[in-house]
Parts: sequence; structure tokens; C-alpha cells
Amino acid sequence: MSRPRLVRLAVSMGDPAGIGPEVALAALRAPAVRARVAPILVGDLGVWRATARRLKLRLDFDDVSAPPRVGRVAVAVSSALPPPVCPPGLPRTRAAQRACGAAAYAAIIAAVRLVQSGVAAGLVTAPISKAHLVAAGHDFPGHTELLAALAGGVPVRMMLAGPRLRVVLVTIHCRLRDVPGLVTRENVLETIRITARGLRERFGIAAPRLAVAGLNPHAGEQGLFGDEEARAITPAVRAARRAGLRVDGPLAADGLFAHAADGAYDAVVCMYHDQGLGPFKLLHFADGVNVTLGLPFARTSPDHGTAFDIAGRGRADPRSMIAALLMAADTAARRPALVRRAAGAVS
Amino acid sequence: MSRPRLVRLAVSMGDPAGIGPEVALAALRAPAVRARVAPILVGDLGVWRATARRLKLRLDFDDVSAPPRVGRVAVAVSSALPPPVCPPGLPRTRAAQRACGAAAYAAIIAAVRLVQSGVAAGLVTAPISKAHLVAAGHDFPGHTELLAALAGGVPVRMMLAGPRLRVVLVTIHCRLRDVPGLVTRENVLETIRITARGLRERFGIAAPRLAVAGLNPHAGEQGLFGDEEARAITPAVRAARRAGLRVDGPLAADGLFAHAADGAYDAVVCMYHDQGLGPFKLLHFADGVNVTLGLPFARTSPDHGTAFDIAGRGRADPRSMIAALLMAADTAARRPALVRRAAGAVS
Repeated sequence: MSRPRLVRLAVSMGDPAGIGPEVALAALRAPAVRARVAPILVGDLGVWRATARRLKLRLDFDDVSAPPRVGRVAVAVSSALPPPVCPPGLPRTRAAQRACGAAAYAAIIAAVRLVQSGVAAGLVTAPISKAHLVAAGHDFPGHTELLAALAGGVPVRMMLAGPRLRVVLVTIHCRLRDVPGLVTRENVLETIRITARGLRERFGIAAPRLAVAGLNPHAGEQGLFGDEEARAITPAVRAARRAGLRVDGPLAADGLFAHAADGAYDAVVCMYHDQGLGPFKLLHFADGVNVTLGLPFARTSPDHGTAFDIAGRGRADPRSMIAALLMAADTAARRPALVRRAAGAVS
Repeated sequence: MSRPRLVRLAVSMGDPAGIGPEVALAALRAPAVRARVAPILVGDLGVWRATARRLKLRLDFDDVSAPPRVGRVAVAVSSALPPPVCPPGLPRTRAAQRACGAAAYAAIIAAVRLVQSGVAAGLVTAPISKAHLVAAGHDFPGHTELLAALAGGVPVRMMLAGPRLRVVLVTIHCRLRDVPGLVTRENVLETIRITARGLRERFGIAAPRLAVAGLNPHAGEQGLFGDEEARAITPAVRAARRAGLRVDGPLAADGLFAHAADGAYDAVVCMYHDQGLGPFKLLHFADGVNVTLGLPFARTSPDHGTAFDIAGRGRADPRSMIAALLMAADTAARRPALVRRAAGAVS
């Protein structure tokens, strides 16, 4: 077998006070990552340098505009925080929160531009703090929604992917009380379509098999507990089948995940956050990857947050970041067309 | 070690056309069950005999009133179905559905009386069909609610228990839309209390550690997605702690189950059906046990349904029934007090 080509990925630092910078640098040391990924670190040079010092890594950083040199790590500088402002750990002052949020936001913007310009073949994002983004004046529910906006408002869906299970969410960050109203035929059908396309384009699965979970217990048990299955989910599944997709559902959400994890389905379309993420994190607590489906480029991120409480102590587990880097490299290598599409998009 | 005493358990046959009778008889052959359980099969003698024939088991049945004899299985006869009415598989006629439902119901009543009279030390129920029960004029959401009524209307909660995880539900069989309204401080607090007591009395855990899941994504993320955590769940957890219970919560329901399965908690109190059963069945698809907490006697059942589609073919997996029998035997042996309480109750 020929050695796989190195894939150039933009890696945004995330919140500078969280575990993002340290899991990113720790992940880059993993042999599987070194064999596959040529990173461009995007963010604050001072933060990357301080993180490398704390992890006792001897890293030499080059500006991304310099010609690539062996043993050097390319950095795209998107902010210049004064050194004492954002040390690891939850920032205490409003000014520090704002500074962290502004730097995290700038890194995302810069990283997306690297992908859209064709310099990077895909994007991996380290975790951000929604509160800090808001403090800095950027009010997005999360990465997924911000990236969708930067890509021109394309419809996207969040997938959590691991070796045994993939779940995709119809609704994400909303009150449970609001979920039934958001489960419409259109929303479910669009999620099925985006999922099927994502599995083909990003995971190389030619004819993906999807399971669609019901909203209510026992998928409503023939209307005994709720009508959303009959009103929205079943019509969406029928429409998807008419369009030639391999979709089963609505299926009772309790027994479904064991079948999917045993290989019966390539992904499970879930109606709400905990329905999908409860089972998913039970299987993939340490190695799950967050994938944004629907974007015109490869984008993954580790399936964890900023973990301010352990930031800076070298205790953060880099496995999810390692999996995110490898999955983004695979997706980018599989889909040069995605990269070309991204180059044409306007942020 | 001394050999554990045999425990006398009443085993209700469940729906005669489902897999209940066959998993019950198959489970009784398991060496661990034979070493621990002296069963009283409750139901229809014709059904038990036909099932034994199909499984090629040489079983001799004795009426429960006869003196116990080695190698004989005690049967408490609660119905006498004419032979062709309820063969295995989904009944086609309304009359057959009614007959199945009536026989299943009669077996439960008879089995509960055996426990309440002190003849049996605990109850294990094979799966029933709610539709057939309703057809026979007995409109209960399920076993749990029927048993609570037969025990005099005591407050009960459903627990699913397996070697790695136990979950208890605040709400069970209702529309997801109705769940937020049912998550009250009183309901959550009573669930915590029943769970803590159940773990002490039925599982021998002196100071159980409970986790309480939030209702909304990220347990509401400080009120960003829903107020049920602040309004109902947090006050219930605080009240339980003031009463001396070891309770954490509300915790985000996605990461929680991995911690619980790793041993951080003895049980997870869940707000609704799929929140608890999705993760539970992923770990314990084949060996989960349904336990009714709050009853004055031991009651378990396998964590599966009637499976009419495979009934009568000898393909049904008896592992969950085996686990249910062993768990009921352990509970009954641990709590002679429960049995005495049951003897005093009036059905």
C-alpha cells in the first residue's frame, strides 16, 4: 500500500483559556496524526507558545506565509492577546471573558478563510465557550450555526460519529418543551437527506442505511402516546424512501441504538439532543467526533467542551481531538470536490 | 460457603400467545436458576404443557396444592383456555385477543395472591400485551400500574437494572410533549426517595449514590434551555440531600450514563422513558431486568415484550428472564420483611 498523502488541516485554537490549545498540540504528537495531517494552527501565537512550554514540547512555529520547512509547525496568527489576559482556567473578569471570546472567534474566521481559499483542505475546531463568544458580541448557539452562516447560510446538521455509532440531530440546543413543535415533516426529511449525503460524501458509504427514531416512547405505540410520528416522522421517512434512500422508521428509541451499534445502520437520525447523545456518549465518551454535515468543506471537532476546571494542567484527554483530526483528514482526502466548492464560497 | 436457600417465586405466564411461556420454561433450565429458584408457574396448564412439548422439555407438573415432589414443577392454574384459541403468534380474531388478555390478567392476579398469602416470596412476570388486556376490559398502562393498584395504590416507580447500570423513571408512558408538565418537585423527590429505599431494601446498598438527570440539553445550561431544572429538579435534589440522601444533580443527561456505568452512581433518576431506556438498552439489551420499586414485595420481569413475531419458534432469548428470576430471588432472600408486609396487604 502506498503511504497516504499528508492532508493540510486548519486547526482553530478554540477558547484560549480552555483545554483546546493543549489537546490540539498533544494530538499533533500522536503517530497516526503525524502520518496523516499537516496542520496549520490558527489562533494566538502567544497562546500556542505558552501551551507548548507547559506541555514541554519543543516546537518551532512558522508563519503560514513562510515556505513549509521540515519540523516546523505552520501558524496563522489571528489575534495577539497580551500575555496575562487569558491564562488557562475560567477567566474571572468580564474583560478577560471578552478577550477570550474575541480571540476564539477570530481564530474560527481565519481558519474558515484558509479552507475557503483552498490553503487548507479541511477544518478542525477546538472547543469554544458560548458565554465568552456572547461577551465578545458574537451571539451564536455554537460552532455549527456560526459555520453555517460563514458558509453562506447553508442548511447543516450536527453529527456525532464514533467507530460504533453515528447519530444526527433534528433539533439541538432548545428546551425539551419546544422539541415536539420543531419536529416537522420538512425538518425530519431535510435531516435525512443531509445525513444520507454526508455519509456518501464524507464517509464513502455508497448506499447508507439510516434509522429514524420516534419522538415519543415506543415511537408513539400506534398513536397511543403522541401523534408526531404519524404527523411528521412517518411522512418524512416515506418521502425519503420514494427518493430512493434506505431509511427505516420511526423506530422506538430505546432498543434502536443497540441494533445500530451492532452494524444494522450507518447512522441514527434523532429528534433531540439527549435522545442521540445519551446513547452516543455511553459508547464514545472519549473518542467521539462532532461532524458538521451540509457544509461545503470538511469540518470536525472533538466531542467535549472547554473544561476550564482542568485547563493548563496537562490532564486533558486528547483522544477525541486525535479522532477529529484523522476523520477530517479522511473526509478531506475523500472529497477534493468539497474543497473546490469551498474555494468558490464567499464568507 | 453454604449453599443458598431455594427461593419460592411465582412466575406469571404473561400473554399466552407471546414468548412469555417459552422464556419462562427455558430460563428454569439454567443451572443458576435451578440452584436458586423453586418456581410456581402461574397460568394456563394447557399453555405450559404445549410450551414444554414445543421446547422438547420433559416436565411433570403438579398442582401447587400438592405436596412438593422432587422433579415436579408446581403450577397454580388461573385459566383453562380451549386448546386452539391462543397458539403462539399474534392472535387474528378479537375473541382470541380477549381470551389472551383475560388469561394473562388472571395469571397476574393469581400470582400476586400467592405472594400476598406468603406462599411465594416474590413475583416474576412474563410479558403481557396492553392491547389484549384492554380487549379483555382491563385498561392499565402496564404491569407496573396494575401491580401498584393490586398492592393498594402504593406509589411505585419502574427501575431497569443490569450489571452495569440502573435507571429509574420519573415519567414513563406518556407523550414527550406532556413530560415537562409532569416533572414537578414532588414527583422528582418521591422518585428519589423510592429509588434510595429500593436500593437499600432490594439491592442491599446501605448508602446508595444517586444521579438525577436534567430534563433539557446540558441540564438547561444555567436556564438557557428551559427552567424545569431550577423550578423542579434542583429543589427536589436539595430536599433529598437535606433528608440525608446522597444525590447529585441535575446533571447533563448525555455524559452522565458513562460515569454511572463506570460505577460513580448506583442508579440514575431519569425524567422520561427514552432518556433512561436509550442508554440502558445499549448496555443491557439482552440481560436487563424490570424491577418495580415501592411494592411491598419483590417483583421483577424481563425487559422485553411479547415478541409475537417469533413466539413459538424456540428462538426467544431467555437471558433477561434468567436475570429477572435471579434478581427476584436475591431481593426476596434479602427482604423477608417485604414478604411479611405483603402477607398483610389486601388485594
